[in-house]
Amino acid sequence: MCLMIFSINFETMKKIVVTGSTGFVGSNLVDLLSSKGYDVYIIIRNKSNLERIKLSNNQQVYVYDGKIKGLINFFQKIKPETVFHLASYFVSEHNSNQIDNLINSNLSFGLHVLEAMKFSGTKKMINTGTSWQHYKNENYNPVCLYAATKQAFESLIDYYVKAELFKVITLKLFDTYGETDNREKLINVITEEKFNEKKLKMSPGNQCINLTHISDVCKAFILAGNQLNQKDFMGHKKYAVSNKKSYKIKEVISLYESISGDKINVIWGGRNYRKREVMLPWNKGEKLPKWDAKISLEEGLKNLYNYKKANLKK
Amino acid sequence: MCLMIFSINFETMKKIVVTGSTGFVGSNLVDLLSSKGYDVYIIIRNKSNLERIKLSNNQQVYVYDGKIKGLINFFQKIKPETVFHLASYFVSEHNSNQIDNLINSNLSFGLHVLEAMKFSGTKKMINTGTSWQHYKNENYNPVCLYAATKQAFESLIDYYVKAELFKVITLKLFDTYGETDNREKLINVITEEKFNEKKLKMSPGNQCINLTHISDVCKAFILAGNQLNQKDFMGHKKYAVSNKKSYKIKEVISLYESISGDKINVIWGGRNYRKREVMLPWNKGEKLPKWDAKISLEEGLKNLYNYKKANLKK
Repeated sequence: MCLMIFSINFETMKKIVVTGSTGFVGSNLVDLLSSKGYDVYIIIRNKSNLERIKLSNNQQVYVYDGKIKGLINFFQKIKPETVFHLASYFVSEHNSNQIDNLINSNLSFGLHVLEAMKFSGTKKMINTGTSWQHYKNENYNPVCLYAATKQAFESLIDYYVKAELFKVITLKLFDTYGETDNREKLINVITEEKFNEKKLKMSPGNQCINLTHISDVCKAFILAGNQLNQKDFMGHKKYAVSNKKSYKIKEVISLYESISGDKINVIWGGRNYRKREVMLPWNKGEKLPKWDAKISLEEGLKNLYNYKKANLKK
Repeated sequence: MCLMIFSINFETMKKIVVTGSTGFVGSNLVDLLSSKGYDVYIIIRNKSNLERIKLSNNQQVYVYDGKIKGLINFFQKIKPETVFHLASYFVSEHNSNQIDNLINSNLSFGLHVLEAMKFSGTKKMINTGTSWQHYKNENYNPVCLYAATKQAFESLIDYYVKAELFKVITLKLFDTYGETDNREKLINVITEEKFNEKKLKMSPGNQCINLTHISDVCKAFILAGNQLNQKDFMGHKKYAVSNKKSYKIKEVISLYESISGDKINVIWGGRNYRKREVMLPWNKGEKLPKWDAKISLEEGLKNLYNYKKANLKK
């Protein structure tokens, strides 16, 4: 007879709540957390577009109806360890009809989450900020109202940090890109240009952008979550999540042309710069400790080219 | 025949919008502005308590229904010169049911006002902050969530300052008092104590408070409004509006006892200090230039005693 002894880890997997899981960064983060065995709970709205969500066994869904009461009950029931707060309403140049969405998504919902965390004893949050809080490399100068709501939310967080001893890291993101990105953003537009007939009307293209690959960004979130677990972590820290090098838009396109061997059909100056165009990304932020972007823009664009070639047809 | 020549000032009186006009400070400010001949427009909610409002010929009312569209139309129609923004939902220790009121009154309504100002070309705002944004004399440490929403709103203001060149002064108020105050606050409670039978359950009473008389506070608002008109004024300045001296609660009561000649019936320690009681008011704020509180606490309490004696009966 042979007695086999297994080492089974009975420790309950850590319960994580992710907001913004239907977005590009959030959906990739949920996949990574799930693959690492975390017990992932996602909060969606009943009007959320769910096409990015691949529900697996260890993901559970709470549908937020805009009211705090149900959210508190949900948090009290599951008592999560950490919240990854990525939900956000983004608009680069708002109009008046978008004001209430900016308030509801970027302030009211986040405050509901913070208050619910208080009731469940959840003390740890990774929050998502933006480099656009730092126009012209200033300590605070919001590029747009969206960036101002991000700054305002940090002030609300600080109440819970000071009064309830929450531990928070705000990761300030720059531009992100990756294989599963379907937002109407530069990289996506240029890598799909050869598959459609349109000419691309662009600004003069001398503004620099800092592009970080989604896999590096997701690693930053997980690493930040681990840093909150360190015994001596206190307060609210804010870190930049950016790639080593920024590029002019013109350089990005020229790089992709050399990778793909195709000319991209751009009309430079076909549209104006935005009123508050960021010509040089913020470069005074403290980088998240022990993290560095591993994927250079060149490598990322090569992978993307191969992915698009395999997955898209003209 | 005698020809009389009159010097008539045909300059249109400056149009001022006041929010929070149904509150203690707001209603006193509206009276002062009106008495100085300003063309005063007040914004109220349809659920506002109007008992403080004495509508005179040069005050007009806009009823805000929570929607931005009507507010923009209102601003476009009257094109005010300056907004005095005093509307606020105050709660010293919130519960979850008050979260949405904090968001709606202290962030959403204020943002609607800022956006409406953009459409009417109104560039000047006097905003109302609180010394409670500076617990323990820190640069930012909110005593309570109310104070955090005040800080958050300043971040939203800054977008309009940077992107739309608004000129803003935030006046950070401390405790205020005066003859027409009917809030359940210390001075009011002790000056009416002799007119009712209740014993006053108080904390141990060693916390200091800084009390500024309403007439000094209103003068600060008008002075700040004038400072926005100076040609070289730019950006968003933040000033403290406080009296020269702070007093322990115990000292305030003892001062009032000596003025009135009556013993006040206090049970010291009958209730606990708040969780985040302010023991020493913020004293690192820059005072509003060219302004000083003229009414000492002793003088203010004497006036108040005489007023209450004349107007209240046991």
